[in-house]
Amino acid sequence: MKQDYVQGFPAYCGFEVLRVAYGRFEVRLKVGAEHAQREGFVHAGVLATMADHTAGYAAYTTVPENISILTIELKINYFKPALGAFVVCRSKVINKGKRIIVAESELFSVRKDHEKLVSKAMITLMAVPLPEPA
Amino acid sequence: MKQDYVQGFPAYCGFEVLRVAYGRFEVRLKVGAEHAQREGFVHAGVLATMADHTAGYAAYTTVPENISILTIELKINYFKPALGAFVVCRSKVINKGKRIIVAESELFSVRKDHEKLVSKAMITLMAVPLPEPA
Amino acid sequence: MKQDYVQGFPAYCGFEVLRVAYGRFEVRLKVGAEHAQREGFVHAGVLATMADHTAGYAAYTTVPENISILTIELKINYFKPALGAFVVCRSKVINKGKRIIVAESELFSVRKDHEKLVSKAMITLMAVPLPEPA
Amino acid sequence: MKQDYVQGFPAYCGFEVLRVAYGRFEVRLKVGAEHAQREGFVHAGVLATMADHTAGYAAYTTVPENISILTIELKINYFKPALGAFVVCRSKVINKGKRIIVAESELFSVRKDHEKLVSKAMITLMAVPLPEPA
Repeated sequence: MKQDYVQGFPAYCGFEVLRVAYGRFEVRLKVGAEHAQREGFVHAGVLATMADHTAGYAAYTTVPENISILTIELKINYFKPALGAFVVCRSKVINKGKRIIVAESELFSVRKDHEKLVSKAMITLMAVPLPEPA
Repeated sequence: MKQDYVQGFPAYCGFEVLRVAYGRFEVRLKVGAEHAQREGFVHAGVLATMADHTAGYAAYTTVPENISILTIELKINYFKPALGAFVVCRSKVINKGKRIIVAESELFSVRKDHEKLVSKAMITLMAVPLPEPA
Repeated sequence: MKQDYVQGFPAYCGFEVLRVAYGRFEVRLKVGAEHAQREGFVHAGVLATMADHTAGYAAYTTVPENISILTIELKINYFKPALGAFVVCRSKVINKGKRIIVAESELFSVRKDHEKLVSKAMITLMAVPLPEPA
Repeated sequence: MKQDYVQGFPAYCGFEVLRVAYGRFEVRLKVGAEHAQREGFVHAGVLATMADHTAGYAAYTTVPENISILTIELKINYFKPALGAFVVCRSKVINKGKRIIVAESELFSVRKDHEKLVSKAMITLMAVPLPEPA
């Protein structure tokens, strides 16, 4: 079920799943005071967390259920302050190797249905078999 | 005052300042259920947020008060799952240019006073003059 | 003139300009023995150099002639070994700020007109005014 | 033998091995006109190639002979123009996992025995078993 996608820290942050497809995942955040940095923009860490979370689940859509996805590394560029009422993050898998999966996440600040690209990330993930249940 | 260092999202995450020196900053997190990812480790986004927050404040110690610090980009590698009761993040400025400041953040999982390096980040920051008050 | 785009190290590497447009640049390399790594694939450094070179010139198309472009940082992912007779690299500017320009470079291995995406890079560049001539 | 470390593109670039130890590797380049970019500094691609080459061999010192090392991704920051007669690059492995090895490379511009840190890189490598000889 959709709510299974958001647990622990992503749930604490308030992410909400918008769309899921093979190799793709989209998440939305309603921005609150708890997401701000010093100047009142959405904190870089919130955006990095969205980028990672969304990329991880985009990768999950491409592997069997007994495979777990771990983030090896994440790189994110911040273009503009995120100032709107919502942030939307869209990820897609751009290369699927046997063990290494690479995804991109684009983050948009949303104000009155107008989207502005504020950040973009590349994420390297590893597909790891889950331990067999005893 | 020390508590001024932690506002908005870093406060919501529960970061606590341990040490401040010129070009250096250290932050600690007491790990709770709200910081977890799927498998129960500390979420990659929590670690990225700590790495960014700590690097930003390390950079702040090197500039005058009328200068703001913005993150241009962040890159973080995840080595091992963070499993301990605490995470400690230590940042230092490794290059201070006129506008561009680069810092590194090392993240340690702490268990009974034993530290293990679980993650390392490089962060590119920009020093931006604050607008003059009218 | 087109040959002005390729000097110094890019010329030594053998890059050849294919296309130039606003915010876009495309370069080709005929692969030789001097471009190989240990296993005979195109060396990661050749691909990083193409990614940087092409991104820099994509950025140059968006600024006046008295502005120089410097690379602040480059991040490149390697998906597959580059094995073909040619490598083609296409860059585009994905965000143009006042000082900071971000570009992406996609690298394709080319074999009998069939292209395969082997690598992708994000490059952060800075627009710097050239010193005035005396 | 030492010269085996430098083949193909690294040999074409003119890298010369200075030191090898477990998890560490050091390489030097005598700078020539063929290494320049537009303004006459050492090209960003030369530095990225040194950072990758040196990190790869630092990783090789930590694995058995039947294991090959591939670069998954490389991230490099450029702090200052490299202007000296030589560039020295020192890499060390900072985390050795079963499959994923992370190394750092520091690049110094050398002028009359004075070293200046001009660039720093993080490189993610993968240890891959070589195919058995038939």
